Amino acid sequence: MILGQEPILLTPGPLTTSPATKQAMLRDWGSWDTQFNQITATLCRDLVDVVHGGNDYVCVPLQGSGTFSVEAAIGTLVPRDGKILVPQNGAYCQRILKICKYLGRAAVELAIPEDQIASPALIEEALKRDPSITHVAQVHLETGAGLLNPLPQIAEVCRRLGRGLIVDAMSSFGAIEIDVRSMPFDALVAASGKCIEGVPGMGFVIAKKSVLEASAGNSHSLAMDLHDQYAYMQKTTQWRFTPPTHVVAALRAALDQFKAEGGQPVRGARYRKNCKTLVDGMAALGFKPFLSPEVQAPVIVTFHAPTDPKYVFKAFYDAVRDKGYVLYPGKLTQIETFRVGCIGAIDDNEMRNVVTAVAQALDTLGVRQIAALTKAA
Amino acid sequence: MILGQEPILLTPGPLTTSPATKQAMLRDWGSWDTQFNQITATLCRDLVDVVHGGNDYVCVPLQGSGTFSVEAAIGTLVPRDGKILVPQNGAYCQRILKICKYLGRAAVELAIPEDQIASPALIEEALKRDPSITHVAQVHLETGAGLLNPLPQIAEVCRRLGRGLIVDAMSSFGAIEIDVRSMPFDALVAASGKCIEGVPGMGFVIAKKSVLEASAGNSHSLAMDLHDQYAYMQKTTQWRFTPPTHVVAALRAALDQFKAEGGQPVRGARYRKNCKTLVDGMAALGFKPFLSPEVQAPVIVTFHAPTDPKYVFKAFYDAVRDKGYVLYPGKLTQIETFRVGCIGAIDDNEMRNVVTAVAQALDTLGVRQIAALTKAA
Ligand SMILES: Cc1ncc(COP(=O)(O)O)c(C=O)c1O
Ligand SMILES: Cc1ncc(COP(=O)(O)O)c(C=O)c1O
Repeated sequence: MILGQEPILLTPGPLTTSPATKQAMLRDWGSWDTQFNQITATLCRDLVDVVHGGNDYVCVPLQGSGTFSVEAAIGTLVPRDGKILVPQNGAYCQRILKICKYLGRAAVELAIPEDQIASPALIEEALKRDPSITHVAQVHLETGAGLLNPLPQIAEVCRRLGRGLIVDAMSSFGAIEIDVRSMPFDALVAASGKCIEGVPGMGFVIAKKSVLEASAGNSHSLAMDLHDQYAYMQKTTQWRFTPPTHVVAALRAALDQFKAEGGQPVRGARYRKNCKTLVDGMAALGFKPFLSPEVQAPVIVTFHAPTDPKYVFKAFYDAVRDKGYVLYPGKLTQIETFRVGCIGAIDDNEMRNVVTAVAQALDTLGVRQIAALTKAA
Repeated sequence: MILGQEPILLTPGPLTTSPATKQAMLRDWGSWDTQFNQITATLCRDLVDVVHGGNDYVCVPLQGSGTFSVEAAIGTLVPRDGKILVPQNGAYCQRILKICKYLGRAAVELAIPEDQIASPALIEEALKRDPSITHVAQVHLETGAGLLNPLPQIAEVCRRLGRGLIVDAMSSFGAIEIDVRSMPFDALVAASGKCIEGVPGMGFVIAKKSVLEASAGNSHSLAMDLHDQYAYMQKTTQWRFTPPTHVVAALRAALDQFKAEGGQPVRGARYRKNCKTLVDGMAALGFKPFLSPEVQAPVIVTFHAPTDPKYVFKAFYDAVRDKGYVLYPGKLTQIETFRVGCIGAIDDNEMRNVVTAVAQALDTLGVRQIAALTKAA
């Protein structure tokens, strides 16, 4: 750790951003100014391009954290008498259910263990069983455990059965391939401070234009009315309410870097390399990921906590932080775990370094027993 | 204008921030990190102190623009069967009425011309006429025209008649004296990017603790549920959803500068000097403010547009911008105006310079006739 340097964030947003992204915030922009509104316009175009949305899709940016955009998408795009199927295998799926409850939108939970994917077959069955279900709200990458749900197959089921699909792609957008031409959706939600590597402060919804245009009057909220935000922006090129100008400028800089790096395929490859380096290094220390490799997304890895009675997460976190790396607590309900992110403006060298930092922290704390004693070799 | 330098924003948020405020964004913070959560805690304490809230008031920060916090305050703090009086003398009062409509909260508009204050006597009369009104939602400084409503007297009426008071103090907080001990309210709403001179991206609600604690279950929205945000923060010291970390850090830096400058009295005095310099300079060019001096707040000044047929706002705006100053269009419905802000990290020299820039712009455009020909000398 360079003396005086801030620690590296291995958290799934906020994450470590590049110097160029942060430096883009060293200027104040007027929100009425043409130059600023051109930034917004190019941002929206580029974000639609990431999923190959062409002319059928538009991007509507929204102030606030990612959850605000998820709520806005559900509140605006699902009619008040709609009914939503929520395949549920983690914390962010549960949040969608909570949003539906606040909004008074009928919702059906399809409960799935948090280490298993939302199976397209089960979703198909649930949709066939209840023809009154109008929409599926699917978390693409369930960041709670770090699990990747099979979006292409789920989109295909929705298309075939004529149901709307709203995707929470918060932690997958930009890192995992999403192509609306082969996996059609009504709307997809993500945010500035995730795999595009901007700073947090705004979300965005990439919506099918025809669906968005038909959604006037649905929203429960003025501030989160995506239709109104879109209509105003079309008319004026401006945001309806004061935009987070510095966050927008940082996202523009981050997107420039994303494109220069080679877009999603290259960014995804960097994250996969980060993830493999991390998992291999941690395995050498005795750590086992919670998920099996087939469902593990290269974005955040959940590890079983050491079984040693000397292990306490807070002390472990502090010891690793002292070496320059910020970890993340687990988000599972039953099992003690911790999480390490693989995303942000970092390469696999940092992943090797964090493994070294973890080893030293364990040593300092006198934690020896990492894995549960296995019953059979 | 220094070559390559960005123009100065004379807009009422986003505004020109100091270098120190922007430089505070040059670091990434983990939202789970103790150090970051201490920043949030000290911010909230300091913001309560600005209005002398003591232990009876708490500050709940919220992601998004100021409107999000206004909507959150109404949605969380006014019970679903409440009824809201909205004294209406401008664009931001109209926005509150729109929010009430979205939220299904009963609202009564008290229409007032946009150059007149919300009179405490009229408010008292309206409240007495309709005892079912539970709350008054009052814009303190109506930024549409730049008018200051008499908050102390309005608060006194609400206290005497036992009605709740929610204050939108977006553009007055930090600039105009607000003392909850002499002008009690249920809640007051402001945002990061106004007179505290932070960057835009978050709002905050300073609420009476007893009112907030009794508000569980009111909110129409998960993301904007202030009670839930508060309860979670009390329990964990963290924001419920990803905070705009860089915006928070910038607001901390801005508040440090606010305190070092001498707090509200000194900041208010600087803005008054800015305002007087501007109004005097513009008067020398023939410009007349839309408001009479008694109701003009030293935050933003609305001027009648030149009557010369050669005047076109867009060309005028561009010409002034070329000289380094960003103006703001008018927000009145009937009369053609433009607005000039007096707030941000700028002194009265800048106000003299903008007057010079305006004079040159008029010259370039060949605009000669500024004021309407008066009927009598
Ligand atoms: C899949 C998913 N959905 C929603 C969110 C919520 O985003 P935010 O914390 O920005 O509100 C996150 C945040 O990490 C996420 O990973
Ligand atoms: C009095 C008042 N209320 C509300 C707002 C809305 O704030 P925002 O644009 O941040 O949503 C403003 C913005 O200038 C304002 O001046």
